[in-house]
Amino acid sequence: MVKKVLKFGGTSVGSIKRIQHVANIIKKEHDEGNQIIAVVSAMSGKTSELINLSKHISDKFDNREMDVLLSSGEQVTCALLAGALINLKLKAKSWLNWQIPIITEGEHSNARIIYMNVEKINNHLKQNGVAIIPGFQGISKQGDVTTIGRGGSDATAVAIAKIFDTHSCEIYTDVDGVYSTDPNKIPVAKKIDKISYDEMLELSSLGAKVMQSSAVQTAMMYNIPLEVKSTFTERDGTKILNQENIDYTKSVTGVAYSKDDAKITLIGVQDKPGVAANTFEPLNKAQINVDMVIQNVSSDQKTTDITFTIKRDDLLKTYDILKKNKKINYKNINHNEKVSKISIVGAGMVSTPGVTYKMFKALSEEKINILAISTSEIKLSVIIDEEKTLNAVKKLHTVFELD
Amino acid sequence: MVKKVLKFGGTSVGSIKRIQHVANIIKKEHDEGNQIIAVVSAMSGKTSELINLSKHISDKFDNREMDVLLSSGEQVTCALLAGALINLKLKAKSWLNWQIPIITEGEHSNARIIYMNVEKINNHLKQNGVAIIPGFQGISKQGDVTTIGRGGSDATAVAIAKIFDTHSCEIYTDVDGVYSTDPNKIPVAKKIDKISYDEMLELSSLGAKVMQSSAVQTAMMYNIPLEVKSTFTERDGTKILNQENIDYTKSVTGVAYSKDDAKITLIGVQDKPGVAANTFEPLNKAQINVDMVIQNVSSDQKTTDITFTIKRDDLLKTYDILKKNKKINYKNINHNEKVSKISIVGAGMVSTPGVTYKMFKALSEEKINILAISTSEIKLSVIIDEEKTLNAVKKLHTVFELD
Repeated sequence: MVKKVLKFGGTSVGSIKRIQHVANIIKKEHDEGNQIIAVVSAMSGKTSELINLSKHISDKFDNREMDVLLSSGEQVTCALLAGALINLKLKAKSWLNWQIPIITEGEHSNARIIYMNVEKINNHLKQNGVAIIPGFQGISKQGDVTTIGRGGSDATAVAIAKIFDTHSCEIYTDVDGVYSTDPNKIPVAKKIDKISYDEMLELSSLGAKVMQSSAVQTAMMYNIPLEVKSTFTERDGTKILNQENIDYTKSVTGVAYSKDDAKITLIGVQDKPGVAANTFEPLNKAQINVDMVIQNVSSDQKTTDITFTIKRDDLLKTYDILKKNKKINYKNINHNEKVSKISIVGAGMVSTPGVTYKMFKALSEEKINILAISTSEIKLSVIIDEEKTLNAVKKLHTVFELD
Repeated sequence: MVKKVLKFGGTSVGSIKRIQHVANIIKKEHDEGNQIIAVVSAMSGKTSELINLSKHISDKFDNREMDVLLSSGEQVTCALLAGALINLKLKAKSWLNWQIPIITEGEHSNARIIYMNVEKINNHLKQNGVAIIPGFQGISKQGDVTTIGRGGSDATAVAIAKIFDTHSCEIYTDVDGVYSTDPNKIPVAKKIDKISYDEMLELSSLGAKVMQSSAVQTAMMYNIPLEVKSTFTERDGTKILNQENIDYTKSVTGVAYSKDDAKITLIGVQDKPGVAANTFEPLNKAQINVDMVIQNVSSDQKTTDITFTIKRDDLLKTYDILKKNKKINYKNINHNEKVSKISIVGAGMVSTPGVTYKMFKALSEEKINILAISTSEIKLSVIIDEEKTLNAVKKLHTVFELD
């Protein structure tokens, strides 16, 4: 007997028909002798609809009440799915955040799950029952409703996998796995069978939004094997595992890109300690997300150039803050408001010499100018002109044998 | 300092604008120095929408999960109203069924409130706070979500008034009180300033659906003064009180009517014990609601006629059941499928001689034939042809000086 967590995202439960389809998936798994805990999101569109209602009352809607409001979405799905399963003659039961309970700590809208009672649900599973649990939410030690951030149903699924010590954690969604690059734009993109946690994190932070990053981090920390698969096909999905469980035959696992970026360069900044901190502190305060930062050694030992990227929408605000910043001196600012970031990601890169060279050569063959470079253990990112984005992705996808 | 329960029905909180309007009503009451517990329904249409979702899954949707589903509606209103009040700088807080808790007993979808913890909410009120509570729901002793029947928010308000020992219980709704007859059809209808619990019950069971009857019964049992008033005007509403607190200057308080009735007469039924029981038992089993029953003393000491009224929609089903009923003998059945019931209601009727005569005379002046008569302490009902309904109501409204 195998205990499984199956998590179904918003589009997977987005209509009554889809909820009935999900009920059939669960029934099949249950009939095969598995003990099933299902974690569900709100029906697609529901959370946005509720946020919208709150915004009509106030842009600064109270955090505590926002969590009370939003948590109603998963409650609805829980009841409908449990009802659909009972209709299929299964002994299904929904358990709300306070009924389990799921205890969280941390602030409203961004809480972390720290405890769940397992006894009642384990008893129910042993009696051939199916348990349905709302994702994304919990209660605080003080008994207030809390939520754990958008996409938090993934985090709930991983927490359940850990706390209930389940054999697997399957994330059902509207795509059938993690791809070597964006399959909507690059038709030769291939589904990846197995990927490591850290590769997955790099890919998802780069825009491949298949799973919530903090849920992947938690799974990595506790070595919980994940599987991302489609609710709508029966194909195998992508397994997310420890690197050691993967045989790397290729140096690069995937090519990711992010658009809508802008690049700013501060020219002739004084090269002394504290300059970077003085530059970025006010941006951070204004909640401007600075992505890549590149600073070269200075040629004259006195001044240097600092280049960084931000979201294009933040460009004006950033300019404004930099110009008002009395703590920094520079000769000039310039910017490029239409850049994108292209990244190759792969745990095999470390052990494969020449990956960097191969990437630069491929881009130069396509006459794509590299505006900035940043590297990590398993990732190599470059900033290029936005209009060359798909060109670059296609070329790299081919060069690194991912087609 | 006065403690008040203010209950807002579905149309009163049917949109963000209306919720903000309700927040202003509460703020005004609070600023006048009152301690406010607000009870809210689901936004209008919401409960029907959720029931509809469940019906697409199954006509026999599981009762436990139905309560989980439906209770989400009031949760949403609670959060939105609390958020709107906080936006008005009030210290408002929502308390869900399990947070208070509201303990109920009885079956799902038809539970009764038996206990509420008052300590936390009373503390909050003492600290100048406003408490928002979802109507219509509670939890069982076993910790399951329960609901207390449609319109159950009224029952929640009355239960809170009793358990928190509040000074008043104000039912805000989309009409501005209880009228002497249907103001939509009879323009001279007048709002009643004060009405007794039992008159209110008679009127509401006769179709004047201003408040849920079982909530009025509970209020009567514990002598909790109610006030029904409009969310959308500032006029005084109708106070619902004990008879002894009302000065009756008129014998009749209101004229009610119900349409869509049908009348059936069984002619020549054997006049012996058990006949009525044998006649009505199978109808009851088939959930056919028999309203008025009239049986005259028999003229020949052997047979009698039994007349009763039912909803018109049940006519065919009733005929069918009567004809299959082997336990009763009768010579003939006849029916009139277009009748209505007209009732005059008034606690002053008992002490005023001639009310009955006055009613019959008035109807005869209008050439309206009386098909059946039924009386109680505070009510006198007659069955007439449906097409004469408004004629009769207008005439009686005038004759009993209600215009």
